Amino acid sequence: MTAEQIQGLERFYRGNLMNSLTGFKSLSLLGSVDSDGLPNLAVFTQIFHIGADPPLVGVLFRPAAPGMHSLANVKQTGCFTLNHVPLGSEEKAHWTSARWTESEFAAVGFTPEYLPGFPAPFVAECPVRMGLCTAEIIPIPLNGTTLVVGRVEHIFFPEDCREADGFVNLAEAGIMAGTGLDGYARVSEIRRFTYARPGLRPQPLGSGPGADG
Amino acid sequence: MTAEQIQGLERFYRGNLMNSLTGFKSLSLLGSVDSDGLPNLAVFTQIFHIGADPPLVGVLFRPAAPGMHSLANVKQTGCFTLNHVPLGSEEKAHWTSARWTESEFAAVGFTPEYLPGFPAPFVAECPVRMGLCTAEIIPIPLNGTTLVVGRVEHIFFPEDCREADGFVNLAEAGIMAGTGLDGYARVSEIRRFTYARPGLRPQPLGSGPGADG
Repeated sequence: MTAEQIQGLERFYRGNLMNSLTGFKSLSLLGSVDSDGLPNLAVFTQIFHIGADPPLVGVLFRPAAPGMHSLANVKQTGCFTLNHVPLGSEEKAHWTSARWTESEFAAVGFTPEYLPGFPAPFVAECPVRMGLCTAEIIPIPLNGTTLVVGRVEHIFFPEDCREADGFVNLAEAGIMAGTGLDGYARVSEIRRFTYARPGLRPQPLGSGPGADG
Repeated sequence: MTAEQIQGLERFYRGNLMNSLTGFKSLSLLGSVDSDGLPNLAVFTQIFHIGADPPLVGVLFRPAAPGMHSLANVKQTGCFTLNHVPLGSEEKAHWTSARWTESEFAAVGFTPEYLPGFPAPFVAECPVRMGLCTAEIIPIPLNGTTLVVGRVEHIFFPEDCREADGFVNLAEAGIMAGTGLDGYARVSEIRRFTYARPGLRPQPLGSGPGADG
């Protein structure tokens, strides 16, 4: 299908198609708070690793619309949390995307959790989560989206899912992947490989089901 | 774990930890070509949806290092392809990350495929793929990475994985997710939900295993 054919598609059909074709995504609840202390929670999938030294994470925000508070909160308070959605919480996570007038925590049934000195709420039900401070805000004029680069200040994960070299097995932690605008994917198995070198086939790494060498 | 503790970790340990904590990722082979016509292929995970109208996709490139040609090629020719990694191709996909002096296509055993008038090579073994032209290049000075925004020019996917509303089921297409620096994840099941509204629990959508309403 060409650009011209894509452009000719009905709007919602095109949205579903293009959102699913970019591949699987992170799937996180973004916790934030406004300057009056009202907590907000919204499901996000456009999250990506920018660097490990310093630890930086990027989040792409859609153009602001009525009822969307996350970006305004991040700009006001300079911090937010990312809480990866675990298996079994996908329905509630999806429900946060409704245009609630009250806080999504109470509305859909997630529990806010706070760290001293860090205003944005974490989600108690999510075993893998991070707290971030805004390091840079980059507008993307092409379509009105905004890239927020966050500096990682706090991380939490189940210790028994961490492998000896620092890798955290998100499948063992029960974390889901996102796909499209409304898809929640179960990950059943992770294979890792050794550092790749020319002329030497990569070998399985770690203790997962794919590891035989 | 706090920012200070993360900063104190050994470099490779921190890289594994931070790369895995951002959640599951797209997993694609980025095809490009230099001005002499030499094709290049490299595995990428920092790929995200920027918009559907016009269709825009973002790819984050790490700071250039010897033996890395993808970003230079994209800047030279203004185009590239993204080819999602299917189950069974993960070992070859990983092997493209070695510092080959020859083209990765021949070295690891993928087949380049060309469209008339579009110089960047597609990967014949990948059922879901897209061809893009560079729309904007955004340097991220914080750590020397580069965000390339690509305009989608061509898309290919298996028709029998496309649902009636345009959603393409990547699990049915056998597409994998990425995790961390060297993890390849099998997705076993996708649940979709109806458009979220306050006061009305989201209902299962589509024909997948989660659909009962």
